[in-house]
Amino acid sequence: MESVRGGAPVDKAVDFANYFCTYSYLYHQKDMLSDRVRMDAYHSAVFKNKRHFQGKTVLDVGTGSGILAIWSAQAGAKKVYAVEATNMARHARSLASANGVSHIVEVIEGSIEDVSIPEKVDVIISEWMGYFLVRESMFDSVIYARDRWLKPSGLMYPSHARMWFAPIKTKLVEQKNQEYQKSLADWSYFSQELNEAYGVDMSTLTMPYHEEQKKYYLQTSLWSNLYPGQVIGDPVVVKEIDCSNATLQDIAAVKSRFSFTLSGSDRLCGFAGWFDVHFRGNASNPADKEVELTTSPSDTDTTHWGQQVFLLQPPLVIEDGDVVQGSIEITRSKDNHRLMDVKITHELRSSGEQFYPATVCNFFIE
Amino acid sequence: MESVRGGAPVDKAVDFANYFCTYSYLYHQKDMLSDRVRMDAYHSAVFKNKRHFQGKTVLDVGTGSGILAIWSAQAGAKKVYAVEATNMARHARSLASANGVSHIVEVIEGSIEDVSIPEKVDVIISEWMGYFLVRESMFDSVIYARDRWLKPSGLMYPSHARMWFAPIKTKLVEQKNQEYQKSLADWSYFSQELNEAYGVDMSTLTMPYHEEQKKYYLQTSLWSNLYPGQVIGDPVVVKEIDCSNATLQDIAAVKSRFSFTLSGSDRLCGFAGWFDVHFRGNASNPADKEVELTTSPSDTDTTHWGQQVFLLQPPLVIEDGDVVQGSIEITRSKDNHRLMDVKITHELRSSGEQFYPATVCNFFIE
Repeated sequence: MESVRGGAPVDKAVDFANYFCTYSYLYHQKDMLSDRVRMDAYHSAVFKNKRHFQGKTVLDVGTGSGILAIWSAQAGAKKVYAVEATNMARHARSLASANGVSHIVEVIEGSIEDVSIPEKVDVIISEWMGYFLVRESMFDSVIYARDRWLKPSGLMYPSHARMWFAPIKTKLVEQKNQEYQKSLADWSYFSQELNEAYGVDMSTLTMPYHEEQKKYYLQTSLWSNLYPGQVIGDPVVVKEIDCSNATLQDIAAVKSRFSFTLSGSDRLCGFAGWFDVHFRGNASNPADKEVELTTSPSDTDTTHWGQQVFLLQPPLVIEDGDVVQGSIEITRSKDNHRLMDVKITHELRSSGEQFYPATVCNFFIE
Repeated sequence: MESVRGGAPVDKAVDFANYFCTYSYLYHQKDMLSDRVRMDAYHSAVFKNKRHFQGKTVLDVGTGSGILAIWSAQAGAKKVYAVEATNMARHARSLASANGVSHIVEVIEGSIEDVSIPEKVDVIISEWMGYFLVRESMFDSVIYARDRWLKPSGLMYPSHARMWFAPIKTKLVEQKNQEYQKSLADWSYFSQELNEAYGVDMSTLTMPYHEEQKKYYLQTSLWSNLYPGQVIGDPVVVKEIDCSNATLQDIAAVKSRFSFTLSGSDRLCGFAGWFDVHFRGNASNPADKEVELTTSPSDTDTTHWGQQVFLLQPPLVIEDGDVVQGSIEITRSKDNHRLMDVKITHELRSSGEQFYPATVCNFFIE
């Protein structure tokens, strides 16, 4: 029942209940298939680099509805192995058939770690990215597939990935604080009522309740599609992944320092994290046309990934040119290897004078 | 890892991920503790029948925050074993301590099937009821506790339970149909766009998508707090459970016929299911004061359980005095023994003339 990912034991049946089951709904597939930024990038990556697919064998890790496998076939692949852990596999199979590529696309139902592919492949294609890239820890499975099934000279689609981090302003900081304060007031009223009506003093649970609500409202990162104007310092890369050779150990944690010079005399409300991936082929077989898929803040090209927002409570008042520096550390949740614990340490400096001492904030990507 | 409930094998770790984990949040406990109908009934049951508790040993199955265990102690119990599967157990322990009954209430963390109680008990108290009584299948665990840990003459709190069923009118029938139709229109647009933009014909997935959405919008029972005026025929009992002797087999399924004479010339929009439980002690040791907890439609005494609504699409036009008759059959979902499949067969008759033939509708309590 158990396998090991990133050091922690994983109960595969629980992992299926918590994670994979979501992907067995067409509704969820439709959401992903409706993300034009995502779709355009993968479509361009495949069809503008047909040479990488023509006459080749391809492995699609987590094919879902089968779209990437079908495109690979349409681009000229000789054979595509499309692996899907959920029973979405049956829909992928019928979609491949309805689009006339069932002789090329072979859908295999099972998790990539469990299935057997008849041959090593020339290309691995996969859409494995979660919120802030690393949520879901699905790249683990892509690494497994690469090391087990990709030819030494084989290509990774995408070939590179980066995690970005930036300081932001957002009204979410007030909204979430208000929701949090309201939940504390609710408890206070509830606790008093319960004592009066039923003679049980709940006050010993007040602190644990506050902690639970603080985690929920203030410490859990938020999904948001930010406007570029909400980013108040030049974003930095906190992690780069070369998909062709990154190891499990390379991706198990992120640790990076940052220093942002802030623009505008406003407030530092927190930080945002997002990612981009690139399709470049590899050194011996570069792409004819490099393609980028970015999930950065945008007025027009929003994605279903959006950005993950980490709020500072309270926000810090800043002057134009102030510097916020510190570090971000992302590790996997002990309880669920697909979720993340995030520790952000920061301090604000202005003209070399320290305004706020170094502060550590703990967040959770749920 | 596996135990058997109601015939189907259960992976306990998956069951914990799917089910128990919800109960580890104080927020969720607060919701249940804020249900005045629930609280008043249990509080009255205990404190108006103190004789059943004074100097007795009590077992609380699924104690959650520990409220029923603390009340039992306050009513005079000599010893209360409070069993809780989640780590809410630690809060129950501190609550018992803060309320001065830690010498009486012993909180035991574990599932009732796994823990050991030092002695047989005089009373089992438990709040085990799910939506329409049977959702969550928690009474299985109460049966286990009873057969293993209750003295032969012991008391069950509650002692009896009933499932009620009635014909209703509700605007939910239009709302859900509109949401369903919109989701189909969305798919149609999506499917066309995807084909035009990316050259993949999605039409083979249209029927599966419709089925998925139909299940979600039309076949999944809905939580609602109905007004009494929405009930258009005298409710009937479709299941009675004597908690002192019901077996797993008795409760694994519900099968009952019904016949309702409808009032008002309006529409039959579907059916609603709810429950009541009673605290009556037992034949040899009856309650001093019988207490009822009902979750029936009410203008004032609403509960967090509400009623479960099963919609007929489309609703049937009716005349005052028409009769709808048929049967309801509830079985456990093959995929999750805590969820239910519901089959409702019905036909509408007016003055002995059949207007609508017998129709079978399948629903899911999710």
